Amino acid sequence: MGVTTGNSGRPGALVEQALALDATDPLGGFTSLFLPSPGVVAYLDGNSLGRPVAGLVERMTSFLQAEWGTRLIRAWDEGWMDQPYRLGDRIGRLTLGAAAGQVFVGDSTTVLIYKVLRAAVAGRPERTEIVLADAEFPTDRYVAQGVAQETGLTVRWLSVYSTLGVSPEQVAAAVSDQTAAVLFSHVAYRSGFVADAAKITRIVHDCGAIAIWDLCHSVGVIPVELDSWQADFAVGCTYKYLGGGPGAPAFAYVRADLQDQFRQPIQGWMGAADIFAMAPGFTPGPGIRSFVSGTPPVLAMLATDATLDLIEEAGLAAIHAKSQALTDFAERALQEYVLPLGARLSSPPAGPHRGSHLMVSHPAFRTVTARLWERGVIPDFRAPDGIRLGLSPLSTTFSEVEAGMWALGEELMIECAGR
Amino acid sequence: MGVTTGNSGRPGALVEQALALDATDPLGGFTSLFLPSPGVVAYLDGNSLGRPVAGLVERMTSFLQAEWGTRLIRAWDEGWMDQPYRLGDRIGRLTLGAAAGQVFVGDSTTVLIYKVLRAAVAGRPERTEIVLADAEFPTDRYVAQGVAQETGLTVRWLSVYSTLGVSPEQVAAAVSDQTAAVLFSHVAYRSGFVADAAKITRIVHDCGAIAIWDLCHSVGVIPVELDSWQADFAVGCTYKYLGGGPGAPAFAYVRADLQDQFRQPIQGWMGAADIFAMAPGFTPGPGIRSFVSGTPPVLAMLATDATLDLIEEAGLAAIHAKSQALTDFAERALQEYVLPLGARLSSPPAGPHRGSHLMVSHPAFRTVTARLWERGVIPDFRAPDGIRLGLSPLSTTFSEVEAGMWALGEELMIECAGR
Repeated sequence: MGVTTGNSGRPGALVEQALALDATDPLGGFTSLFLPSPGVVAYLDGNSLGRPVAGLVERMTSFLQAEWGTRLIRAWDEGWMDQPYRLGDRIGRLTLGAAAGQVFVGDSTTVLIYKVLRAAVAGRPERTEIVLADAEFPTDRYVAQGVAQETGLTVRWLSVYSTLGVSPEQVAAAVSDQTAAVLFSHVAYRSGFVADAAKITRIVHDCGAIAIWDLCHSVGVIPVELDSWQADFAVGCTYKYLGGGPGAPAFAYVRADLQDQFRQPIQGWMGAADIFAMAPGFTPGPGIRSFVSGTPPVLAMLATDATLDLIEEAGLAAIHAKSQALTDFAERALQEYVLPLGARLSSPPAGPHRGSHLMVSHPAFRTVTARLWERGVIPDFRAPDGIRLGLSPLSTTFSEVEAGMWALGEELMIECAGR
Repeated sequence: MGVTTGNSGRPGALVEQALALDATDPLGGFTSLFLPSPGVVAYLDGNSLGRPVAGLVERMTSFLQAEWGTRLIRAWDEGWMDQPYRLGDRIGRLTLGAAAGQVFVGDSTTVLIYKVLRAAVAGRPERTEIVLADAEFPTDRYVAQGVAQETGLTVRWLSVYSTLGVSPEQVAAAVSDQTAAVLFSHVAYRSGFVADAAKITRIVHDCGAIAIWDLCHSVGVIPVELDSWQADFAVGCTYKYLGGGPGAPAFAYVRADLQDQFRQPIQGWMGAADIFAMAPGFTPGPGIRSFVSGTPPVLAMLATDATLDLIEEAGLAAIHAKSQALTDFAERALQEYVLPLGARLSSPPAGPHRGSHLMVSHPAFRTVTARLWERGVIPDFRAPDGIRLGLSPLSTTFSEVEAGMWALGEELMIECAGR
């Protein structure tokens, strides 16, 4: 993506810092491995929809011609059938700290949250509550409300609007021997707040409840250690930092020792012990398989696999380090160009609670976002007044961040002047 | 696909008939609009996985580069968000006899059956039974068993193994004021039996129950008239005759007047009244939207859309006419080459109960199928002893059927001789 420097009135210091950071960025080479986006000056929404890797065009063509087109139905026996588990294991190994056999890909995030939450509460039949944060992503809240309604439980809401995210202390004060399950985002979708998942999981377990983690905004960019946290269940999205493409299927983690104890409600043929026996009664498959329902979404898994090639090569530690450098730099640019105009940063400071996106707020941001999109600067807008800056380490350059923040400042200034 | 004729001992009559039928086939031109399948002599499994249309390579490349790669997140506002409804309406109009606003695409067949069956039984809270056929496709049976278990209902099984499919008389004898819902396949997955859906739906309605149709093996090839049948719900698959590719998302039909009365259990953000308000409580969206749960699987819908271009051009009446001609011809070829060796046809005779696939059975068919696959003749095998011949009118030639049936006869003869 080309960046125009030297605009009238634009101070040179941040432009030069960005160029220097790009020049020494150990992951700088990866930014050219994505498809070009003509007309896009700064893509700042990789936490909503990741960019497609360039190699995907050839890979998809080969899939259409040589796999689907040529092997046809035979390809199911030649690898497709195992693809949800193979890709799940790969996501687990590269990004989740999860040993093999505990992750599969399939269904949407929403459906998977439903499945694991139903399984969790069924596993704690004597308990009456599900605990969530009031600022949780809508689909998590809606699913939990629906599950509570159909199972006769109550949702206990933790208030986190003022604190940006959920703390171990809040959780400790809320959970009890009545808690069946908690469902929290590891990284909050608005603020980017990173929860202390290890500590919260211990607190939840201490009262005998089930800990479910939503990893949508952390997978592929913030270190996740599901096995070490001893998380019970987790669900995440592949179309953000995992580059799966619009509406790509989600993944679920079910800890190995829970797989045969807990049952999800959508019994489908792909979750049966012997799929092609097509037996009269349903016998759940061994291991993670019992959490699968329908036919594996093979074509829709290709793009994630292609992005994982890059993640594997870069390594998650380096990706996280660049995420930190990008958010630090974005904060500096905001301080320089945007915050002086009356916007405020609604994300945690640099440190263990900062994720890979920043939320910045101003009443004029709905209009400003529309104008930014027109000039090829693409953050996303979250009602009522938030611009979310998603920084995706493999595809985002520091110069892009600088250009985006400069444009944001310019448009905000124009908008405020016009009021 | 090249067909070798003149094998030693191969009678010429059927070969010539096939060539003549191909020469006068009004849909003959469509067979060249699919990607070539090198080494494949006869693809007889279009009812399991349809072949990709040739134009999909360019379309997918353009999607990756110009839509996802360039428009990025902006594409959600520029059409992606409506894609489940736009494609649903198109499927409805071209293949289901369904007026707009009643069909959407998303989730797997299994998940959609779960959602509509849960909605149906919740809408008949005072009733105690779900009615299915014992030879129903496994995922339908497993989902129904799971739903019955969690809602305290009983599944009443109709025995259809000897009759190949479910009859109005059987249904009339089974349903009562205790029936909450019935779930039947329009076309049976093994025998290809086409049920009298209009009549059965009337019988089901006469006792106040809900009629759910599984259209997996009829959509795109056998006429379906959901609005005229007054069906309540329907679910179908896009990766067979609709060419959606392996694991492509399914579709669901919810009759317009039921959409606001019936509620499915997986409340997700995409089913909410105002998606981006991200409101505290879930308010179901108007119309069909309340049956949607997660993010639309945009990339995974492309191939179906490409196949629908061909279906629109050919017209479903012509497609069905060729389906009938193909199954008639396949039956003749079976009579000539295969049945004399001891195999038996387990599908209805030509007429209103014949679908677009034929089931033929012999104890040696498991081994025979493996050998056929090696020589590029690809039917599918269904335990314990069935070969299923799926004939897909847009991509299958009569010569291909002849070549496949000849190969089947040859391999069966070799297998029987070796025993």
